[in-house]
Amino acid sequence: MHEIAVEERAHKIPVAILGATGSVGQRMVEMLSRHPWFEIVQVAASDRSVGKRYREAVTWLLSTPIPEKIRSMEITDATKPSDARIVFSALDAYVAEEIEQHWANQGVSVVTNARPHREHPEVPLIIPEVNAENLGLLHYQKFAHGGIIVANPNCVSIGLSLALAPLVQEFKVDKVSVSTYQSASGAGFPGIPSLSLLDNLIPFISGEEEKLEKEPLKVFARLDENYLHPASMAISASCVRVPIIEGHLKSVSVNLQKSVSLEEIKAAFVNYSSPISKMGLPTAPHWPIYFFEEIDAPQPRFHRFLENGMSIAVGGLRSCSLFDYKFFVLSHNLIRGAAGGSILIAELLVKQKWV
Amino acid sequence: MHEIAVEERAHKIPVAILGATGSVGQRMVEMLSRHPWFEIVQVAASDRSVGKRYREAVTWLLSTPIPEKIRSMEITDATKPSDARIVFSALDAYVAEEIEQHWANQGVSVVTNARPHREHPEVPLIIPEVNAENLGLLHYQKFAHGGIIVANPNCVSIGLSLALAPLVQEFKVDKVSVSTYQSASGAGFPGIPSLSLLDNLIPFISGEEEKLEKEPLKVFARLDENYLHPASMAISASCVRVPIIEGHLKSVSVNLQKSVSLEEIKAAFVNYSSPISKMGLPTAPHWPIYFFEEIDAPQPRFHRFLENGMSIAVGGLRSCSLFDYKFFVLSHNLIRGAAGGSILIAELLVKQKWV
Amino acid sequence: MHEIAVEERAHKIPVAILGATGSVGQRMVEMLSRHPWFEIVQVAASDRSVGKRYREAVTWLLSTPIPEKIRSMEITDATKPSDARIVFSALDAYVAEEIEQHWANQGVSVVTNARPHREHPEVPLIIPEVNAENLGLLHYQKFAHGGIIVANPNCVSIGLSLALAPLVQEFKVDKVSVSTYQSASGAGFPGIPSLSLLDNLIPFISGEEEKLEKEPLKVFARLDENYLHPASMAISASCVRVPIIEGHLKSVSVNLQKSVSLEEIKAAFVNYSSPISKMGLPTAPHWPIYFFEEIDAPQPRFHRFLENGMSIAVGGLRSCSLFDYKFFVLSHNLIRGAAGGSILIAELLVKQKWV
Amino acid sequence: MHEIAVEERAHKIPVAILGATGSVGQRMVEMLSRHPWFEIVQVAASDRSVGKRYREAVTWLLSTPIPEKIRSMEITDATKPSDARIVFSALDAYVAEEIEQHWANQGVSVVTNARPHREHPEVPLIIPEVNAENLGLLHYQKFAHGGIIVANPNCVSIGLSLALAPLVQEFKVDKVSVSTYQSASGAGFPGIPSLSLLDNLIPFISGEEEKLEKEPLKVFARLDENYLHPASMAISASCVRVPIIEGHLKSVSVNLQKSVSLEEIKAAFVNYSSPISKMGLPTAPHWPIYFFEEIDAPQPRFHRFLENGMSIAVGGLRSCSLFDYKFFVLSHNLIRGAAGGSILIAELLVKQKWV
Repeated sequence: MHEIAVEERAHKIPVAILGATGSVGQRMVEMLSRHPWFEIVQVAASDRSVGKRYREAVTWLLSTPIPEKIRSMEITDATKPSDARIVFSALDAYVAEEIEQHWANQGVSVVTNARPHREHPEVPLIIPEVNAENLGLLHYQKFAHGGIIVANPNCVSIGLSLALAPLVQEFKVDKVSVSTYQSASGAGFPGIPSLSLLDNLIPFISGEEEKLEKEPLKVFARLDENYLHPASMAISASCVRVPIIEGHLKSVSVNLQKSVSLEEIKAAFVNYSSPISKMGLPTAPHWPIYFFEEIDAPQPRFHRFLENGMSIAVGGLRSCSLFDYKFFVLSHNLIRGAAGGSILIAELLVKQKWV
Repeated sequence: MHEIAVEERAHKIPVAILGATGSVGQRMVEMLSRHPWFEIVQVAASDRSVGKRYREAVTWLLSTPIPEKIRSMEITDATKPSDARIVFSALDAYVAEEIEQHWANQGVSVVTNARPHREHPEVPLIIPEVNAENLGLLHYQKFAHGGIIVANPNCVSIGLSLALAPLVQEFKVDKVSVSTYQSASGAGFPGIPSLSLLDNLIPFISGEEEKLEKEPLKVFARLDENYLHPASMAISASCVRVPIIEGHLKSVSVNLQKSVSLEEIKAAFVNYSSPISKMGLPTAPHWPIYFFEEIDAPQPRFHRFLENGMSIAVGGLRSCSLFDYKFFVLSHNLIRGAAGGSILIAELLVKQKWV
Repeated sequence: MHEIAVEERAHKIPVAILGATGSVGQRMVEMLSRHPWFEIVQVAASDRSVGKRYREAVTWLLSTPIPEKIRSMEITDATKPSDARIVFSALDAYVAEEIEQHWANQGVSVVTNARPHREHPEVPLIIPEVNAENLGLLHYQKFAHGGIIVANPNCVSIGLSLALAPLVQEFKVDKVSVSTYQSASGAGFPGIPSLSLLDNLIPFISGEEEKLEKEPLKVFARLDENYLHPASMAISASCVRVPIIEGHLKSVSVNLQKSVSLEEIKAAFVNYSSPISKMGLPTAPHWPIYFFEEIDAPQPRFHRFLENGMSIAVGGLRSCSLFDYKFFVLSHNLIRGAAGGSILIAELLVKQKWV
Repeated sequence: MHEIAVEERAHKIPVAILGATGSVGQRMVEMLSRHPWFEIVQVAASDRSVGKRYREAVTWLLSTPIPEKIRSMEITDATKPSDARIVFSALDAYVAEEIEQHWANQGVSVVTNARPHREHPEVPLIIPEVNAENLGLLHYQKFAHGGIIVANPNCVSIGLSLALAPLVQEFKVDKVSVSTYQSASGAGFPGIPSLSLLDNLIPFISGEEEKLEKEPLKVFARLDENYLHPASMAISASCVRVPIIEGHLKSVSVNLQKSVSLEEIKAAFVNYSSPISKMGLPTAPHWPIYFFEEIDAPQPRFHRFLENGMSIAVGGLRSCSLFDYKFFVLSHNLIRGAAGGSILIAELLVKQKWV
């Protein structure tokens, strides 16, 4: 056992985390510190943290302790050179773009969870189970030394897109109406003051509806040479912050291009299996979608940690009087929706020899 | 001052509350105990409470104390004869129908907050500001001694219907898609266990979506002799319980029969004034609808008590990519949506000489 | 009615609020905007708010709207000269001392809710019902033009001290052991992030235990010329933040110098009436202490608003196996414990001709 | 791997869970279903569940799914004979005593989490790390066929007793003052209604203060033949329910018989190692106590799952002005305080050949 560990370590790929003290960054630290392929060699954060030990700079929000080997690691500037071959970016939107391009130009593979590059026409927006083929766009990126940038969709877009995947695949979806119930952790840390959220709901999340209406079109886009043809689906989103800690619930109605029975829809969810499931990616869930027949599922506190938070839950499937069907989707916003989604992309990049 | 009070009391109409210890019943007790026209002469509850003092039978959930004159009142059986000329029913659905008809046949005016009579073709489903004219249906009720039954819509239907009223009136509405964020108090007491609701969402409320899809059609029905022609609107509802105490928020999208600008919609909300506003009904709000321009309004903790909880709040008005417009509606489920709505109906009945 | 209001206004005393946009400042704005004696002529806040309208600078946290006449008032610097004859300070500790002395040296009466002057030997620490006589210390203050500074104890000290008052008065108290359950609003705004407080407890509040162990000794101090002899009571405090919005609960055990029965203790609470109750101070509660016999009282959500939040609640009185008796105390931290306490002091100052 | 599992299973001890659908019973199901020594052969619950499948009778409250092999198990009556050699009782107090004695008289080893036998003079009250030697009392139990009954202390007593253990052992403790912050799950399911606990505190838990003042005296009792001499410690407890899901926090002050420095106290906590740590009991934590230097630890959400919830957390150690020292203790009420504590006792019984 011990020897295997040593050997494994000898082959691990050095990675850096930018924005390592934020709520997404912490999840990355937690997941990557026990990752079989990757090894954290750099944790970077904002200026006021640079030079501090990780444990001193972070307000640690997980119930597992700070990983031992990261506790004393010194926080660097986000552009400090290092051996990292993959950089995970959980940077704030206003600094992310430039720093990420800087790393890509050093020949590094960047997986970003930040907004700016998601919209960039040359950056693929990837959910490995859904659109791995769109990585082909990387052939057209022009960073120095073979550097690349891949983006992870927004925390709420991932859950919705993954739930739509079997329906898009089998029946085509043309309209999606979605209202969200988003947890406090989606706003980062410190994020929403407790005085604003206890016994309250906040019917506004800056920029979120726009992202949720647009990003799935890029996720389901068809790659044609160097161009992504956005899916023709129309989405209307209404986003609300609710007083729960983790997990984004979505109330979804869909219109399909085919007329299908409720049993067919259900079968599509139940039988959905990921095209990447045979690849042996360590973070990939066995079943990306869990379908619940129970009348009152899914519920965040009970279902947000399916397959360590990498699977989403679908339930409450029923006919809709305005569209075809409606259902609820739950996904863990920090794991599937951010840290875990980014790590899964990196695993796919390694498997497909992009790194 | 004191003399006026005595005189007022001399003319007060005796009323009874059935289901007086429940969460709606308590609000009725609180509101009616300081009502200028009505005087509580009877509080009835289930068998295990009969014979007890009100204060002993109730788990009082309000931050104001139990009204002094009610504290020691003895709880009666729900059919015990009394002087009451108006009976407010907050009974459980499975016993309500029979008991309410019993009272009506004694010549009493019954205002019910229970489900069964809401759907009855001869019982008007009334929101005084919206469809007072549907009280005309009472001419066709056949209870002995002039007894009548009027129903109050479900707690979440009232908020939605009242918000739709200016749009129905000015532009006609043909489609409504609504997802709800409903507070714990909507489930009564004891209702939802704290272990089920802390840090959680429950995407199922028994029978609620059906009510919310049907009741507004009866609220906006047109009375033709003894028949209510339901409105032709199509509604799709998705209902979720959220961990807040009071107030139901609704994310609403609407399709209108006319093409109108956002400014026109906004004006319809802002200028909406109730046809009953001049009647001097004590519980009627000055403005049934408050329209908010603030980007993140309405929020339950801050806006559920507008005009003592009798006004609803509308905010977040914006274009919708699938329907015409979308917006949020907040209403206090126990006040506007139950106790206060019933009391306002009773006031209207008095004003229009039905009592 | 209208004429009286005009006349009242003619005689109103102009007041300023420093730190008017914080959570305590907001409560002051709310309470003072409808005060019969005082009129807000100035609202001051930190540099980044100066020059803005009040409504633009504040994140309003009350369920009543921002008072109409304050909404558009321009926020000034905290030292900007004005007509104010009384200044209410809800400033942050690190700037409060100097600014408060500045105002006092302009001949203004300062009532402060900030920490620094509470500990100053020449500043009386006042709870009007408990130690109005300690205002005598003001004779020895040496500010220019008759300016004075009076301090309000910390939000949790006020509740404890007021609860101890009848026991100190009748039986002498020599030991107090107290563990607190303090609400989110005690930390100001933005204060505690929701991610830190949802489903959590924080067993640390900076400087709070020290204040709670010391301030009551000054509250119960005996004034001898210009010296306050601190009470000889020993207090041990343990302070915890809990996920509720408003209200500080305290679990208290006391040792008395006399041997008394539980009935005598109870009578002391029940019969406690304030020496200031006949003065006609508008904010003074009729009964500063409400004693509850119910086995599970007091509870924050149901009892924090007794007499508009100016009365405290005592309950759960029982024998203690280590001290003499134990009981629970609840007080509203923002009203009785801050804004309301300060306003009551100002009313006392006016009544006793210090202003 | 598979073969080992089969072999393991061949040697597993058959166990039953009484009260298997309650909140403690569910934790037992979850922990025992993956236990290396024990195999669940019977799940019993109240009459209205008998005959149902486990999954139909339970409102499952854990975020891991119902263990596969238990889902379809049929629920039996609590006295139905079975092969079980160990019976775990999580029964309601009013039925527990008789049923537990019934099982003991069948020669079965009963580990009870219910109140009645805890107080019985012939039933040892065991925390394995603290007082394993008190199992000697079992020599004097007189049940047929070698049956025995051992009790697990109340959920809040366990945490307090375990925290006191190093102090009792090294310095003797003579006085303990404790105020508790107890989570919703301590009240079972359905337990506290959400309407009673959202934004609220309940300063009363039936019978809890009595248990917390008495049980530690039996935990620290010295066994002399067939008699347990209770420890002479005096405890005063004040118990409050707070709106969190799991974990009981305790604010504790202690008086010691020796004068010791804060460093010595700290060392006692840090160095405390369990006398059972070498026994290889599968559920025993490596370190029963985690001592935190961080100023604001322990916090329920972050520290309740130390060593899968079997370790307690101690923090906030500081001098006390009335007693010697004060500190905070956190323990998981359902794991360490109930299901896990009972299972650890059963493991000890097996190891010491009582089973």
